[in-house]
Amino acid sequence: MPQLVRVQNFNVSSDGIAAGEDQSFERPFGHVDPERLFAWAGATASWPMRTEPGGSRGLDDYLTRDYDRGIGAEIMGRNKFGPQRGPWEDLDWQGWWGDEPPFRTPVFVMTHHVRPSITLGDTTFHFVDDDAASVLALAREAAHGKGVRLGGGATTIRQFLDADLVDTLHVAVSPVTLGTGVRLWESPDELLDRFHLDVVPSPSGVVHHLFWRR
Amino acid sequence: MPQLVRVQNFNVSSDGIAAGEDQSFERPFGHVDPERLFAWAGATASWPMRTEPGGSRGLDDYLTRDYDRGIGAEIMGRNKFGPQRGPWEDLDWQGWWGDEPPFRTPVFVMTHHVRPSITLGDTTFHFVDDDAASVLALAREAAHGKGVRLGGGATTIRQFLDADLVDTLHVAVSPVTLGTGVRLWESPDELLDRFHLDVVPSPSGVVHHLFWRR
Repeated sequence: MPQLVRVQNFNVSSDGIAAGEDQSFERPFGHVDPERLFAWAGATASWPMRTEPGGSRGLDDYLTRDYDRGIGAEIMGRNKFGPQRGPWEDLDWQGWWGDEPPFRTPVFVMTHHVRPSITLGDTTFHFVDDDAASVLALAREAAHGKGVRLGGGATTIRQFLDADLVDTLHVAVSPVTLGTGVRLWESPDELLDRFHLDVVPSPSGVVHHLFWRR
Repeated sequence: MPQLVRVQNFNVSSDGIAAGEDQSFERPFGHVDPERLFAWAGATASWPMRTEPGGSRGLDDYLTRDYDRGIGAEIMGRNKFGPQRGPWEDLDWQGWWGDEPPFRTPVFVMTHHVRPSITLGDTTFHFVDDDAASVLALAREAAHGKGVRLGGGATTIRQFLDADLVDTLHVAVSPVTLGTGVRLWESPDELLDRFHLDVVPSPSGVVHHLFWRR
């Protein structure tokens, strides 16, 4: 099994927007209600944040439960970790996810402002100021032969796509239009020169886009 | 995670046939060429019997690689294990799969003719003469809290469906018509009184049917 770099369960609107503007502590996705993008995943039996039994076990559940399969490390951009810009003013902030973040591996947070690593449950966040290829080298080593999940946001995924460092992408396109915000693409067709694409409409209304290298 | 009983990657023709008649050592699927049913899975990167690198990483690969996820035991019918009928005449026969069967768990083979257990690689075959519920109890215990895969053939799956012991089914319907053979169903609609169903056409031509309990 090659050590793939994988985007998993990344959500965008039908016009390619992954998050809104004006991100804040109260609104991690800015002006965008994330429920409008994530509802398909939250309805599945395998949703990691599920607190009640039940949930669907069809197509959407297959994709949800593949999220951590064979993954040994994650890379994320700073804005996925928190809404701060510039130097960290409050080191007590430890991300959005509470005492048990759902990653359960080393996580490399790309930022120009490094700070000490944080361990919460089975997740350790490392803060690194380097280019995509160098951060990926760190993540590959930490993953001990398993795959590396590229967690987003859209800007970070674009950075790795531009450096041609991504092996597979699962992008869930929700049937909502957002207009403005942080954009992954104008159209999925932009990736077809380098990737195969399966377009898989789900009965839930989301359209799964599964890319793998040509 | 409940301990589910799952049918995974089970293949039938568009008219519901899973295997042909006149099974023999040379033709495990009787008059049916299994390649006509399995080709979609063999083309994926995660196909367990893959000997060369490459393969697709789209929808069909998600389903192929879920085959063993969270599975701790398999149950199969005797005719999946071998073509013999009646008492075993040659105990040297140890199944179709060589020294490293792809199951890698305990496997319970349902037969009226018991014989000593066989260990090959990470797989141990146990031969049991009992009803579906009793065999399932053995498999659940052997699975140590993980799920139980119901491996087939069609007759065995029907037996467990009739006893209402199946939680989820993934049945891949291939675009071929076979006419005669061992039948899983006349139509997938037969299960809709008890199961939700996602019908998911793949770009490969196969149509994945994903059932889960209502």
